[in-house]
Amino acid sequence: MSQSIIQNTIDDLDALRSKSPLVHNITNYVVMNNTANALLAIGASPIMAHAIDEVEEMVTICSATVINIGTLSEPWIQSMEKAATKAVSIGKPLILDPVGAGASNLRNMAIRRILGAGSPSIIRGNASEILSTLNSSGKTKGVDATDSSDSAVDSGKSLSKVTGGVVVISGATDYILSGTDKAQVRNGDALMTKVTGLGCTASAICGAFAAVQANQFRAATSAMAVMGIAGEMAKIKTSSPGSFQVAFIDALYEINADTIKQRLNGE
Amino acid sequence: MSQSIIQNTIDDLDALRSKSPLVHNITNYVVMNNTANALLAIGASPIMAHAIDEVEEMVTICSATVINIGTLSEPWIQSMEKAATKAVSIGKPLILDPVGAGASNLRNMAIRRILGAGSPSIIRGNASEILSTLNSSGKTKGVDATDSSDSAVDSGKSLSKVTGGVVVISGATDYILSGTDKAQVRNGDALMTKVTGLGCTASAICGAFAAVQANQFRAATSAMAVMGIAGEMAKIKTSSPGSFQVAFIDALYEINADTIKQRLNGE
Amino acid sequence: MSQSIIQNTIDDLDALRSKSPLVHNITNYVVMNNTANALLAIGASPIMAHAIDEVEEMVTICSATVINIGTLSEPWIQSMEKAATKAVSIGKPLILDPVGAGASNLRNMAIRRILGAGSPSIIRGNASEILSTLNSSGKTKGVDATDSSDSAVDSGKSLSKVTGGVVVISGATDYILSGTDKAQVRNGDALMTKVTGLGCTASAICGAFAAVQANQFRAATSAMAVMGIAGEMAKIKTSSPGSFQVAFIDALYEINADTIKQRLNGE
Repeated sequence: MSQSIIQNTIDDLDALRSKSPLVHNITNYVVMNNTANALLAIGASPIMAHAIDEVEEMVTICSATVINIGTLSEPWIQSMEKAATKAVSIGKPLILDPVGAGASNLRNMAIRRILGAGSPSIIRGNASEILSTLNSSGKTKGVDATDSSDSAVDSGKSLSKVTGGVVVISGATDYILSGTDKAQVRNGDALMTKVTGLGCTASAICGAFAAVQANQFRAATSAMAVMGIAGEMAKIKTSSPGSFQVAFIDALYEINADTIKQRLNGE
Repeated sequence: MSQSIIQNTIDDLDALRSKSPLVHNITNYVVMNNTANALLAIGASPIMAHAIDEVEEMVTICSATVINIGTLSEPWIQSMEKAATKAVSIGKPLILDPVGAGASNLRNMAIRRILGAGSPSIIRGNASEILSTLNSSGKTKGVDATDSSDSAVDSGKSLSKVTGGVVVISGATDYILSGTDKAQVRNGDALMTKVTGLGCTASAICGAFAAVQANQFRAATSAMAVMGIAGEMAKIKTSSPGSFQVAFIDALYEINADTIKQRLNGE
Repeated sequence: MSQSIIQNTIDDLDALRSKSPLVHNITNYVVMNNTANALLAIGASPIMAHAIDEVEEMVTICSATVINIGTLSEPWIQSMEKAATKAVSIGKPLILDPVGAGASNLRNMAIRRILGAGSPSIIRGNASEILSTLNSSGKTKGVDATDSSDSAVDSGKSLSKVTGGVVVISGATDYILSGTDKAQVRNGDALMTKVTGLGCTASAICGAFAAVQANQFRAATSAMAVMGIAGEMAKIKTSSPGSFQVAFIDALYEINADTIKQRLNGE
């Protein structure tokens, strides 16, 4: 099992670097630079474009579209809806990062509108965001949310049923959920929470792998494995967040079959 | 006197790191990433949100709101007004960074509108920005502006009288002014002027301290002390601005009671 | 020939550092921080301002305006048109970076509108963007585009005829074209393509040199020389893109007559 995750991640990374897919991002102002650099470092080609007049063309020429609601406003929501609809209609992978879900009505409403426009093939967030996204989907009634310690995973499974796609819950352990499938990645470092936007980077990296690996569950698992391993590689270089942010981009560029074999801790 | 600044800064930093307050930022595109990382590094939790439909909720859930006019446009000004009004109405600290005050009519008008919407508990800028903000407040007539070499400080005092809040003038010496109170911090390094947005970072750090220290004069003084000391710590690592920007974030994470005791030069 | 490029670059850099010109940027969200830091590092003073209500004032107080269409939307296009018209009307250098030209109708239309509002003194892009910009200018009919291996240079020459300004084609060899003049710079490193926005930085640095050197062909040549040399200096420090981005800013700050003499490979 673990063996297959390792080999899948290696193979998917090879495919990513050989194909260098265009990945379209409608993302927040805070992370645009880092997201673009992360995509370049792992081997993809980023395009950041949000104007409603060009998002359909961008979805069409790219191999995946990543929507991130970190710094929302109404014109951006409209572009996100249009991009989501287009991506689903032409069968392109669609990744949603519901940043700050639950923090405001605007965010909850935006999530509902985007989910209504097109079901993401991958949704990635932390436990709180996934729970709020499930609530925002308007389809939680009767769904198996529980109060157990695994409630985040249960919520993620429920959300996966609602969307029909993959749900990733980031944390000390990353859970990748799809229907009855579940994978776990236990790599990474706590310092990753002290750098802004590494969650956003994870979603963009999901987009990069989704662009070259049709099995979105496997693509998301490979992406989270690479994120966690790169975090550990960066931590070897530094224990402070400014230089960690830099070392993390370096690590995405340097990660290879050897580092994946040595470090991947998942199943 | 100096002793009390040192201890206050140490205590305020302890409070900041133990409470990890949410700090809401409506700031400019140029610095969003660095501002968020600086807030994380010092121990706060940043939220960047500008949409008029969610700023009131963000003000409410956060412990301080920082408004920075670096890259203005009309929709953002409206959100800033709304956020300022809300913050003042519910008694949350409000920090204003009047970036580029005096450089255009739009900026002067925006400052006037924001000041009209709600009086900031702290305004931070360089000497030129503070003077222009005083002029934009529309209340300079008869106020004690002079041509002496201390004119910036006089303008700052006048502005403090107008707003009833604290005014910080950044420079080789930082002046913290409130009514008849005046503190000075003489830390920092000239290389800080070669990195974009460290003034904006200073305002955000003021917000972080203002969120945990009700005395806004003391909060602003602690913030400027930490900024200056972190600048000196970064300068030990490098003399070039790219690596300085990185080392500065590291220093905000690494600063502690020892470095504050060793380096703080203020009164 | 090579000797004169070296001396010109040294002299122009001296002028830039002694005058520290204000450079106005209407640029994309992805690169704003890096662009501002690059301008500071080389010795200029950046202003980032896009609001339609202030762009004319910003053009007026600055010594050059750089327009970059990386993350477009309609309000920004209107501001770009207004800024272009103003810059040309008062004789300020105007630099256009047609990021992603050809990738969408919106971009092609925006380029056409900006070119219609005011002819840039310098246009800088990669070969594909220059070709698309030529096509977008609406004046390609009958122009000498060919299928030869030099077609990018031919397109650049044609675009130069259309605008009456300088055209820079970035690549392993940078071509600077103006009427019948042609210069080449063969510095730089392939790792520069793995960092987002170094093309945008090149355009901003063109603006910085254009602000202090009236001969825009010479200004653009000096700018590209400095970019390429800084890339080589950064590569000495690191072979990974995260730390390269940091080292590149350091190199812009550290570059001097000696490094220019040692490294400049152009004619």
